[in-house]
Amino acid sequence: MSASATGRRHHVVIVGCGFGGLAAAKALGRAAVDVTVIDRTNHHLVQPLLHQVATGILSEGDIAVPIRDALRRQRNTRVVLGAVVDIDLDARRVAVDTIGLRREIEYDILIVATGARQSYFGRPEFAVDAPGMKTLDDALELRGRIFGVFEMAEGERNPAARRRWLTFLIVGAGPTGVELAGQLAELSRRSLRGNFRRIDPGEARVLLLGAASTILPTYPEALRERAARDLRELGVELHVDGQGVDTDSTNPRVQRIDAATKIWAAGVQASPLGRVLAKAPGVELDPVGRVKVETDCTIPGHPEVFVIGDLMGLDDLPGVTQVAIQSGRHAAQTIIGRLAGDTTRRPFRYRDAGRLAMISRLRAVAVVGNLALSGFPAWVLWLLVRLTSLGGLKNSASVLFNWTVAFLGRGRAPRVISAQQAFARQAIEVHACDAANEPALSTAAHAEGGLP
Amino acid sequence: MSASATGRRHHVVIVGCGFGGLAAAKALGRAAVDVTVIDRTNHHLVQPLLHQVATGILSEGDIAVPIRDALRRQRNTRVVLGAVVDIDLDARRVAVDTIGLRREIEYDILIVATGARQSYFGRPEFAVDAPGMKTLDDALELRGRIFGVFEMAEGERNPAARRRWLTFLIVGAGPTGVELAGQLAELSRRSLRGNFRRIDPGEARVLLLGAASTILPTYPEALRERAARDLRELGVELHVDGQGVDTDSTNPRVQRIDAATKIWAAGVQASPLGRVLAKAPGVELDPVGRVKVETDCTIPGHPEVFVIGDLMGLDDLPGVTQVAIQSGRHAAQTIIGRLAGDTTRRPFRYRDAGRLAMISRLRAVAVVGNLALSGFPAWVLWLLVRLTSLGGLKNSASVLFNWTVAFLGRGRAPRVISAQQAFARQAIEVHACDAANEPALSTAAHAEGGLP
Repeated sequence: MSASATGRRHHVVIVGCGFGGLAAAKALGRAAVDVTVIDRTNHHLVQPLLHQVATGILSEGDIAVPIRDALRRQRNTRVVLGAVVDIDLDARRVAVDTIGLRREIEYDILIVATGARQSYFGRPEFAVDAPGMKTLDDALELRGRIFGVFEMAEGERNPAARRRWLTFLIVGAGPTGVELAGQLAELSRRSLRGNFRRIDPGEARVLLLGAASTILPTYPEALRERAARDLRELGVELHVDGQGVDTDSTNPRVQRIDAATKIWAAGVQASPLGRVLAKAPGVELDPVGRVKVETDCTIPGHPEVFVIGDLMGLDDLPGVTQVAIQSGRHAAQTIIGRLAGDTTRRPFRYRDAGRLAMISRLRAVAVVGNLALSGFPAWVLWLLVRLTSLGGLKNSASVLFNWTVAFLGRGRAPRVISAQQAFARQAIEVHACDAANEPALSTAAHAEGGLP
Repeated sequence: MSASATGRRHHVVIVGCGFGGLAAAKALGRAAVDVTVIDRTNHHLVQPLLHQVATGILSEGDIAVPIRDALRRQRNTRVVLGAVVDIDLDARRVAVDTIGLRREIEYDILIVATGARQSYFGRPEFAVDAPGMKTLDDALELRGRIFGVFEMAEGERNPAARRRWLTFLIVGAGPTGVELAGQLAELSRRSLRGNFRRIDPGEARVLLLGAASTILPTYPEALRERAARDLRELGVELHVDGQGVDTDSTNPRVQRIDAATKIWAAGVQASPLGRVLAKAPGVELDPVGRVKVETDCTIPGHPEVFVIGDLMGLDDLPGVTQVAIQSGRHAAQTIIGRLAGDTTRRPFRYRDAGRLAMISRLRAVAVVGNLALSGFPAWVLWLLVRLTSLGGLKNSASVLFNWTVAFLGRGRAPRVISAQQAFARQAIEVHACDAANEPALSTAAHAEGGLP
């Protein structure tokens, strides 16, 4: 029985509360519908700033806004913590799993906004050795590894093993890889200066490997060259040759680079919920797993099901925040229009809001319309755009404070390695791996007296 | 061969970098000695503020200062990440384990400052169900549990199970238990207001159980009564009866309280390194495992080995920050004096700097000399004392900012439940436990449409 037949309000279920889901929920805040937002985590994550948590500039609270808090003033909206494990398009029902507790939630209108995750190109086992940068847990684990390897290097007497601890390999030279490489270089050369006695953290090698023939392939050539020059000045080694990157350990090229820390920033694949939707007749996935949608962001045959953001396959739009936000708002406006009796299926039109990547403190590259910016002006723009994307005065003020400390000063407060973070596990794995493949890492007890 | 015989500088090894170890290291910063600071973690932890991380007011970076950064200007000091697993008093050597990598470090003078940990009075298995509040990991795990149970309660339809999710049981009514109880009450009644649709988070029960006949047993009676009144006004239920607390699940009294979240703040035991030292002839432990020291904080027969802070058994001094700091400085001054040829064994004299416990925002209790303060004046004092204990302008500013947000506003930014935090594990355990012992937690799938 449909909502209109019973006279009750329409129930809109939004799956995923990234930039797309949150934008849709907010746009429905004053509409005469009931809204349920379902997310696997309790926070909306500002993914473009994950690299700053991984390198100890920001705390997780700065970039993770509690979803309940963000939506607390919308009395028509409730929030459910759980993972959607199935969608029944005929019964109009989603199955939600909250840590083993399974329940089903019916919808009149569904918005699927579960985004994308790291793609290891069919080799998920690489995730253990080279974590990605998509979730807060990724960033926290990486933070533990990054600050952990400097500790291990300080305690290491074998020069080859020490070099290995101090080598960082970033696979993928898009904005994520570029921003992380820049921050790792600044961390080692600037923030950690004076912290060690035996090693010079500035000797750390940061390698950026790209599959394309250039870094930042979607940027104009002048900006790519400027970004490459800025990165090289920071000490980042660029390896972009268009030959592709093969992470297979039997490939001699990759074995040559002996890095304790490997980070995967190469390519994404759409959320697995796409495959669930694709079981319906007429619904297809594109090559990276995105759901092909009609021009109004609904799936074929189901005008009540919207797919937005990174999971949406439409005109090969880029996987950026603005596509998610704009398609989320488009879905909400379409729903509000329908409730008012407007049955026109208005197509979604993406207005390109530009592109931004930070290289280092005080330097960035940016494209806004026909304008290409670099250096300090681009960095100021980056700062303003990121600050306004945090969705709240409180977080913006906290982030601004931490940036002042990190960029004007040289401090990075959140440098904690907690036992929960995977450094311990990773280090043990690395040891086990070393024992099998490499010259001894001087694990034998050696007496040591006084200072070197 | 001693340092003086070879002409090289004395090597002072400090094990543990809490308040005692850090104070000793800083006091030796300009001395003509080489200093090595060994700690299991990479951070100095401001333990008295752990409850604020657990309840989402502060981020871990606010109360965890990287040890290397705190000591980076002392060129005579190096920092080693690792756990001291053995001490050879005759060979003057400690064995350090860094994630499986074992090495030995020789000393001329040793300062053992490894403090105390939670005591479960011989039942360590309680730690799984009722974590303590001694490490950053404890606080982060607790944060995940605290924010997690509100989520579980919101999704729960069985009223008994819902009450269980919303019941917090704190065992131990000293300052740690009192501060945590106050913050939990404020979190549920104030900060989370408006965040939920089905539950009223303000209905959460916060129970504070004390083994003594009163809360805050070391405080004067007027302050204890005031603190109890303030806590009751916040909605905390006090159970202090001097009968002792028995956590044995066969005890009918404890079974009656059905709480999903249990927190252990009852009693500490000294670090296990005390037992290693007690193997030496003439060295003894007191009943709580502290090493009985001479009046100058050295152990009998070994004037080159100092034990300070919570591990030190001397005059039954309380386990507070100021004892650790003052005994750390005393050890450093004794060492500096000896290098100058002063062989007097000056006794350590503790100057009582008072006691402080926060009850809620704007309320605290404090004892300074003969002065007993409560309410707002005590809270201002609490604020100033805690701010100056953070050891740096950067952290103080960040904490002050977060306090402004939390105490003047109602926001708590760091409310993240990350997958690394143990909420998932705990919830699963709780489910398993429920299935065996309790009425069904309505885990069966139930269809659910629209809003309730």
